[in-house]
Amino acid sequence: MTRIFNFSAGPSTLPEAVLQQARDEMLDWRGSGMSVMEMSHRGKQFMSIAAELEADLRALMSIPENYRVLFLQGGASAQFSFIPQNLLGDKTKACYVKTGAWSEKAIKDAQSYCDAIVSASSEDSNFTTIPNVADWKIDLEAAYLHCTSNETIHGVEFNTTPDAKGLPLVCDMSSNILSRPIDVNEFGLIYAGSQKNMGAAGVTVVIVRDDLLGKCSKLVPPVFNYAEQTKNQSMLNTPTTYSWYLMGLVLKWLQAQGGVAAMEQRNIAKSAKLYQAIDASTLYRNPVEIVSRSRMNVPFILANEALDKEFLTAAEAAGLNELKGHRSVGGMRASIYNAMPESGVDTLVSFMQEFERTH
Amino acid sequence: MTRIFNFSAGPSTLPEAVLQQARDEMLDWRGSGMSVMEMSHRGKQFMSIAAELEADLRALMSIPENYRVLFLQGGASAQFSFIPQNLLGDKTKACYVKTGAWSEKAIKDAQSYCDAIVSASSEDSNFTTIPNVADWKIDLEAAYLHCTSNETIHGVEFNTTPDAKGLPLVCDMSSNILSRPIDVNEFGLIYAGSQKNMGAAGVTVVIVRDDLLGKCSKLVPPVFNYAEQTKNQSMLNTPTTYSWYLMGLVLKWLQAQGGVAAMEQRNIAKSAKLYQAIDASTLYRNPVEIVSRSRMNVPFILANEALDKEFLTAAEAAGLNELKGHRSVGGMRASIYNAMPESGVDTLVSFMQEFERTH
Repeated sequence: MTRIFNFSAGPSTLPEAVLQQARDEMLDWRGSGMSVMEMSHRGKQFMSIAAELEADLRALMSIPENYRVLFLQGGASAQFSFIPQNLLGDKTKACYVKTGAWSEKAIKDAQSYCDAIVSASSEDSNFTTIPNVADWKIDLEAAYLHCTSNETIHGVEFNTTPDAKGLPLVCDMSSNILSRPIDVNEFGLIYAGSQKNMGAAGVTVVIVRDDLLGKCSKLVPPVFNYAEQTKNQSMLNTPTTYSWYLMGLVLKWLQAQGGVAAMEQRNIAKSAKLYQAIDASTLYRNPVEIVSRSRMNVPFILANEALDKEFLTAAEAAGLNELKGHRSVGGMRASIYNAMPESGVDTLVSFMQEFERTH
Repeated sequence: MTRIFNFSAGPSTLPEAVLQQARDEMLDWRGSGMSVMEMSHRGKQFMSIAAELEADLRALMSIPENYRVLFLQGGASAQFSFIPQNLLGDKTKACYVKTGAWSEKAIKDAQSYCDAIVSASSEDSNFTTIPNVADWKIDLEAAYLHCTSNETIHGVEFNTTPDAKGLPLVCDMSSNILSRPIDVNEFGLIYAGSQKNMGAAGVTVVIVRDDLLGKCSKLVPPVFNYAEQTKNQSMLNTPTTYSWYLMGLVLKWLQAQGGVAAMEQRNIAKSAKLYQAIDASTLYRNPVEIVSRSRMNVPFILANEALDKEFLTAAEAAGLNELKGHRSVGGMRASIYNAMPESGVDTLVSFMQEFERTH
């Protein structure tokens, strides 16, 4: 068995130790005589897995008592619709900051439910910047302000938490949750799909402040009504139990690595190495302004597009996979989430330098 | 490692061969150097897994060309809301048959979107019968007729496909899909959660006839709009990839067992053994009328309720788990889906007979 370095934007690489444990426990979880995926979600074994999952996430992110933690289905994309439906209440407007493809989708879907005001946009820069917060046009009558903390396709990331001028700040953290410390108190609602920094696909984490509950439209299915799922510990119906378990294993691994503060140091080191290699080269180029560069997703284009295919083929032959950039921006993209070891980045940088030397 | 016999109603026992394969492929799927859960859903490896999954389900169920097969998230319970929202179009009514707790929930949720007419109900019999089809009051102005082919809590099952008088027949098959041959042509839409007869939790199969697409309410999130997901091969967002893979393994196992016709014979044999043991006893009793008894979920009550706890403790000590009945009906319940081997039923019957002899 040879494991590759997998730079996929999501689903993405997982810690090998997590996969080994999942493998070893597959037919018999800790003497239960069952696989986790065979357990009733109401049984005592799975209930203990669920309780630890929430406790570990609360500890890692220092989630305050007045926030509820939900583990839902449907992906973060489904929340593009369910967030306005859960939070608008009597309001008819919500503010959005457009920083790339994902915030664009969130805006589009929200328009079915409210006036989705674009408070700021970096579209003019082709999504290579984060708009200056001082210039944001925030409507104080809006139900909330939405932003996307990291854009996987364009490779831009907020390096601070913006000031929402008193509106509840709603943030899609799908691609950088747990990659750096944040202060949950600064947010009204945080949501994230699981398949980048938290495990396998199939869970959508929603962390929501108590006072934002109870405003849900009656047209939302009960399993996507935050207040209903709060009352039912996210088990109004059968959850994606095996994905919950895998997320639990990833969180234990994260704790063992030193938590999010330690991960941030690693992510700074890993991304700095890659950006330095790109900036020092004449073949590769990253278009994002330096302060807004993502630590998670590093897009780069080759000076000669005709070399793209050869680059990808040679990279795969070297065990460096899923480096093709998103079709909307072209070129390459290396996604280097928490679980990508520094050795993966080192190997990629060496490969890129060798490829440049020979081309 | 000792594997137990797990009679959970869902998530539920899986074929040991499936778990072994998942274990063996955990760190490296067929030389890819990745776990399936690490693969990009747009990558060639996962696309091949997805294509085989659909092809195998189509083959096993003989799904005609004019039906689309979707693999969604959210569970069958979410479909209680998304079915009316996708199918009503200009209509304002839908017909429902109430045969137990699950059809009751489907009716309750549908009421948010339409006049959910109860065409027939077996509530008077405490859900121990299937209402006589000749007596159903079907409103021909309704958008569809909904039924639940098997009720896990009450242990009742349709033994034929009802005549919907020309309305599209919509059927929740969560707990008996693939357990017996059916003619898909008789249905407008079939839906089912994965965690009983098809694998781990996290996938909702929707099989829908072409002509029913395109009527979806604009208030439905795109990922739950059948027409949108049809266009996108159920990948409008990241699906629960690992659950898709596991379902694929279960379908391969099912093929190797001889398909649904062979499974039906086994399910008849397994359930007959258990019902015969119950009917022959004075301690155990199943309240369901004989023709409507479920082959999947066999509830039974003890003549002396005070023995319940002792029964469950002794059963667990004998490696027979998750036999506690649903709190709404009490007593015991043995769920014996496709993956429960006949030896599991034999062991349970022997245990029950020995328990009766000594009590």
